[in-house]
Amino acid sequence: MAKILITSGPTRQYLDPIRYLTNASSGRMGAALAQAALEAGYEVAIVTGPVEVEYPKDAIVKQVVSTEQMKDVALELFGDCEGAIGAAAPCDYQPFSILTEKMSKEDFIRGEDSNGELLLRLRETPDVMAALGAVKREASDPRGGQWLVAFALETSDSHVKALQKLHRKRCDLIVVNGPNSINGSTSAAEILDPTGNLVAYACGSKLDVARRLIAETLKLS
Amino acid sequence: MAKILITSGPTRQYLDPIRYLTNASSGRMGAALAQAALEAGYEVAIVTGPVEVEYPKDAIVKQVVSTEQMKDVALELFGDCEGAIGAAAPCDYQPFSILTEKMSKEDFIRGEDSNGELLLRLRETPDVMAALGAVKREASDPRGGQWLVAFALETSDSHVKALQKLHRKRCDLIVVNGPNSINGSTSAAEILDPTGNLVAYACGSKLDVARRLIAETLKLS
Repeated sequence: MAKILITSGPTRQYLDPIRYLTNASSGRMGAALAQAALEAGYEVAIVTGPVEVEYPKDAIVKQVVSTEQMKDVALELFGDCEGAIGAAAPCDYQPFSILTEKMSKEDFIRGEDSNGELLLRLRETPDVMAALGAVKREASDPRGGQWLVAFALETSDSHVKALQKLHRKRCDLIVVNGPNSINGSTSAAEILDPTGNLVAYACGSKLDVARRLIAETLKLS
Repeated sequence: MAKILITSGPTRQYLDPIRYLTNASSGRMGAALAQAALEAGYEVAIVTGPVEVEYPKDAIVKQVVSTEQMKDVALELFGDCEGAIGAAAPCDYQPFSILTEKMSKEDFIRGEDSNGELLLRLRETPDVMAALGAVKREASDPRGGQWLVAFALETSDSHVKALQKLHRKRCDLIVVNGPNSINGSTSAAEILDPTGNLVAYACGSKLDVARRLIAETLKLS
């Protein structure tokens, strides 16, 4: 049976050994997608950031911390997968350097920056789904084509931004949901194709939404 | 019996509805201290940031998200406590404003900041333990004196920095431990008094360290 890759959970970008930048993401949608995919007969590989959620025992699970690591492991696993679903919320900015020692408040108070302000210069992290999009095999490929599904969590202009995202990452479908979905157990989502058509609307538990989405992926292969 | 306050876990400073800055902290030391304090006969109130750890059922637990909230709730609870232990790792920087909408990668790509850099201007959050230190009652107070114990997690110059911290926050004891303690289940800690004397050295499980520290607090009242 075909194998698919699911990215799940947040990633962390450390500023020093203690402080980090991250995203609110529980990994519950990734876990629900893994369960729905196993039910549908897929083999499942998951690459996940630090989460407390339990993934299905039958899935292969690879743990990562940073976005760079998630991209590397995802690229490694994607080769023998039929498709990938990006349910992770990778942290998209990172500091230019990671301090090896914890920044100390005493350092700031003693230093020139005595008004307690800190300017943090951040750069973009690699885009995990765009990296998969760049190596995705077309349907004409003799080894078989591959598909990609991204998630868009936007608080405004959701369809416009979601379609930009779909095209930038070379995805086949994009799931649009609002910020209410982040940590909750229920969810509502619209599934759009590259032309902006609403191919499905799903609501209910995260597992309900996951089953609806997995049913759509079966039409892609 | 006397009541004590324990701060525990990380806090989060959101940049927008999705992204936040935080500290690595599991809340396990706070939970161990609560258990040790209950065993010693203290009543226990805990103010905690978002954690997965379970606190003892007999403790009063107040949930917060940001450092400002932790400071406000801690100040509220501290009045009728004999002492407080700061085992939390409050996030010490926050953005000047929290965006109400998620920052979008499309905004950056379209905008002037097209090289993907982001300058984040941060300011210090309120210092929770220093706020308690500022209202702490002296031993001569007719309502009874109060004590404060801080934690210092430093990766270098640990004693010097820890003592600076103790004096800045007006604490009676400070617990010094290394970064290995952050998420692990075992711990090693030195307990220093305001003159820099090593009053105790504790190692073993977090509960062992917690019991040793609680025994020291009993001498403060």
